[in-house]
Amino acid sequence: MSLHGKLLIGSARVATDATFTAIDPATNGALDTAFAQGGPDHVAQACALAWEAFDTFRETSLELRASLLEKIADNILALGDALLERVGQESGLPRARLEGERGRTMGQLRLFASVVRQGDWLGVRVDPAMPERKPLPRADLRLRHIPVGPVAVFGASNFPLAFSVAGGDTASALAAGCPVVVKGHPAHPGASEMVGEAIAAAVKELGLPEGVFSLLSGTTNELGGALVADPRIKAVGFTGSRAGGLALVRIAQSRPEPIPVYAEMSSINPVLLMPAALKARAEALGQAFVGSLTMGAGQFCTNPGLIIAVESPDLERFIAAATEAIGKTTPLVMLTPGIAKAYKQGVKALADSPSTTILAQAAEGEGNTCSGVLFSVTAADFLADPALAHEVFGSSSVIVRCPDVDAVKAVLEGLEGQLTATMHLDEADYDAAAALLPTLERRVGRILANAWPTGVEVCHSMVHGGPYPATSDARTTSVGTLAIDRFLRPVCYQDLPDALLPAAVKHGNPLGLNRRVDGVVQPGK
Amino acid sequence: MSLHGKLLIGSARVATDATFTAIDPATNGALDTAFAQGGPDHVAQACALAWEAFDTFRETSLELRASLLEKIADNILALGDALLERVGQESGLPRARLEGERGRTMGQLRLFASVVRQGDWLGVRVDPAMPERKPLPRADLRLRHIPVGPVAVFGASNFPLAFSVAGGDTASALAAGCPVVVKGHPAHPGASEMVGEAIAAAVKELGLPEGVFSLLSGTTNELGGALVADPRIKAVGFTGSRAGGLALVRIAQSRPEPIPVYAEMSSINPVLLMPAALKARAEALGQAFVGSLTMGAGQFCTNPGLIIAVESPDLERFIAAATEAIGKTTPLVMLTPGIAKAYKQGVKALADSPSTTILAQAAEGEGNTCSGVLFSVTAADFLADPALAHEVFGSSSVIVRCPDVDAVKAVLEGLEGQLTATMHLDEADYDAAAALLPTLERRVGRILANAWPTGVEVCHSMVHGGPYPATSDARTTSVGTLAIDRFLRPVCYQDLPDALLPAAVKHGNPLGLNRRVDGVVQPGK
Repeated sequence: MSLHGKLLIGSARVATDATFTAIDPATNGALDTAFAQGGPDHVAQACALAWEAFDTFRETSLELRASLLEKIADNILALGDALLERVGQESGLPRARLEGERGRTMGQLRLFASVVRQGDWLGVRVDPAMPERKPLPRADLRLRHIPVGPVAVFGASNFPLAFSVAGGDTASALAAGCPVVVKGHPAHPGASEMVGEAIAAAVKELGLPEGVFSLLSGTTNELGGALVADPRIKAVGFTGSRAGGLALVRIAQSRPEPIPVYAEMSSINPVLLMPAALKARAEALGQAFVGSLTMGAGQFCTNPGLIIAVESPDLERFIAAATEAIGKTTPLVMLTPGIAKAYKQGVKALADSPSTTILAQAAEGEGNTCSGVLFSVTAADFLADPALAHEVFGSSSVIVRCPDVDAVKAVLEGLEGQLTATMHLDEADYDAAAALLPTLERRVGRILANAWPTGVEVCHSMVHGGPYPATSDARTTSVGTLAIDRFLRPVCYQDLPDALLPAAVKHGNPLGLNRRVDGVVQPGK
Repeated sequence: MSLHGKLLIGSARVATDATFTAIDPATNGALDTAFAQGGPDHVAQACALAWEAFDTFRETSLELRASLLEKIADNILALGDALLERVGQESGLPRARLEGERGRTMGQLRLFASVVRQGDWLGVRVDPAMPERKPLPRADLRLRHIPVGPVAVFGASNFPLAFSVAGGDTASALAAGCPVVVKGHPAHPGASEMVGEAIAAAVKELGLPEGVFSLLSGTTNELGGALVADPRIKAVGFTGSRAGGLALVRIAQSRPEPIPVYAEMSSINPVLLMPAALKARAEALGQAFVGSLTMGAGQFCTNPGLIIAVESPDLERFIAAATEAIGKTTPLVMLTPGIAKAYKQGVKALADSPSTTILAQAAEGEGNTCSGVLFSVTAADFLADPALAHEVFGSSSVIVRCPDVDAVKAVLEGLEGQLTATMHLDEADYDAAAALLPTLERRVGRILANAWPTGVEVCHSMVHGGPYPATSDARTTSVGTLAIDRFLRPVCYQDLPDALLPAAVKHGNPLGLNRRVDGVVQPGK
């Protein structure tokens, strides 16, 4: 499949004088195709189209919008091997992983289609008029949620399908009725173009306004900054580094009209090894831990970067098993040369700390590879140096040795907000775990028992979010169906004649929606 | 009833060397009682207690938390005439209004009690385990919402009961399970103390931790700034001026851990007079408009500060009726000398504009009074000068004369975000109104037909919110039961043993909650 390298501004395909190429991280070699460098003018064009499309797109029928999401999934699948090959070249990720990720991408598009059709996301509420009420009658009051407006989505490097051009942010924004302008991640511009064309084709096939979707490529910060600053953009979805996310937050806050930024930024995902569980299966836990740590070269937001346990011979058994397992791992190619370089710097910083000991380190590989490494630190030293809690994106983890369970709690209380926390525990650990739960709830978005945080289920109950700085907005999730709420706001209609009411809140409930009437949900069908 | 004038820091009553007094706006005279000037140390003490109370308070039973809200309502009623007299002295508001406002205050506390008991606000979702799923099994995933943490509430001047110490922000935060630290409005410190003691008594009677509620008084910006900056405060509720709200937003955003600020700031609440309605009842509309404009000296967030209509003889009939009605109004005492001064300045700025004409102005009163005034401006002039769209808090309104319906739309599109928009319309106006609806939805939080925006029903469907700068966060409302969502965030539990799961998400559903199971709401009882 040949790539055109152009910007997708609605239905226009726009070339630029300045271009860039993708790098194969396995070889450091440039891949084919010169990709356009989008700039502020292109942002303005894409946002103008998105704004123009907004009032039409947001009032499309639920069925049409669901069909769009399903059509996008179909079109992505129809790209076949060509997509998987290109994204493999651009990301260094193996075929099996990419097949799984493509499945997840299509799965979440289809899940959001089902959510759109079902309609509960509209959050319809009705308080019927009470003309006889004393001392004052009550008006007829009806509420629905409407989309906020065009959304800027920033493709992530580490999920080049599932959190990029047609990823969770795009799927949830389109589901809500928001046109989307994607700023593609420069590490995988070819895959971005292919997926972008799949979306654009779906928009066209369903007769929707071209401005429903645009894709801008480029390597400059100026491009993303202009996108977030554009007055027609009303919300931002981002997954990436803390520095990148906070830069976008600052731009969004300094606009004449500030807008919400949903940035998923950094997390070290503490894992607690409780005493009875550790005693019962220290070796198995050590092996499984290394599996989670090194999977995908550790390039997951939910990578277990911190192990917390009370000192004991069982902890030494865990460490011995983990050390042995890390020794057997082979270096894996990382997503980009930049990520590989940052990983080595992060590992060096931990190694250079006077507080840390290296417990285990896998053999170094060539080029842009990641080798697993395991550090140890005392709880007191860990609490004394916040730098030891910085995320090192890749297969690096720190084991915090605690003198007692009070120190475990102190370490948890000292942590910044996280996406996840995990407890390995047996029944004998329940009391101690229960005492730690309030702290975990205050610190994280998802709490796991006897599992590993990598692998995020796309479903209704998922929370891939958490207190700052795990994300810029702890009230939401970026994975799972609740993510649609990020792009909605409530509007109340008071005494509007039925002829003017939107279908969702009309008296006869023509959409058959579940509605909260006088505070109680009434089934629609 | 004698007042002590002290800060309420949990169960402690704290006097300070520096004090201030309340002013009777009707006389400019100082009222009795020297009130403590709270400072950063007091903020730290109150926030430490709130933090200490948080984990306990947030896990109280739904019944206990509902009882707290009801007990607060009972205790406020038990204050009897003494409360109404004091708040009347401090605010200049008449008795009948204050009786109504007290009723609303108790009503919203009781409404939130019913919401807490019902439990839907927990937003429970369950995706049961699928151990046989291929290629990977699904874990058991459960979601509930938890309160964000201690909340800072800023009492508003214009609703000294319903949006002050025990107002909507406090009620919704307590309902969510958040301890509350109120910064009382310095215009009504006596009423604040009385209501604060009513809350503190309820907290004590129900055996809850003292830190669930504190009340700090003071006249300095430093006090409020320190409160928003305290690391134990996790969200802020505010109703007041745009300058005040934005100052709090800036402080909240520059914290090491930024937090959400729900500031309801300013709105001029456009009212559209559609041609057929205007033709049918211009005089009645003109009279009713002045009733809404001058009620309570126009000191409502939803005061109709902007009338928009196409030029016609019927518009002149409306203006004539409004002019006559304004002439019959009598000056009303405003809430504070500062508000009265700002009103006069705002009116002068409009009068000094070369674009405006004064259509009508009521006779000037003595002292801190407000006299209704009506301006006229052309659509072109209005669009050319953004200052003409600034809120003038009080009974001032601007009529925008439009050459045609396109100009009406242009005026609406040119407005900043608003709390409300109103259309007066008859059936012959429906088509034109339908064409304007998308613009209104994008610009405001509540759309009314054939009504006036003053008078905000406290119910499930109310949205007292809207796009920036009407509020700092358009995704929410500060009035109505949806306001509880401001103080919640989702947490997901993955494979936690039932013994450790919070009751709301336990397998057996012991609380009998409605839950979304695999995406579909299942009734709990």
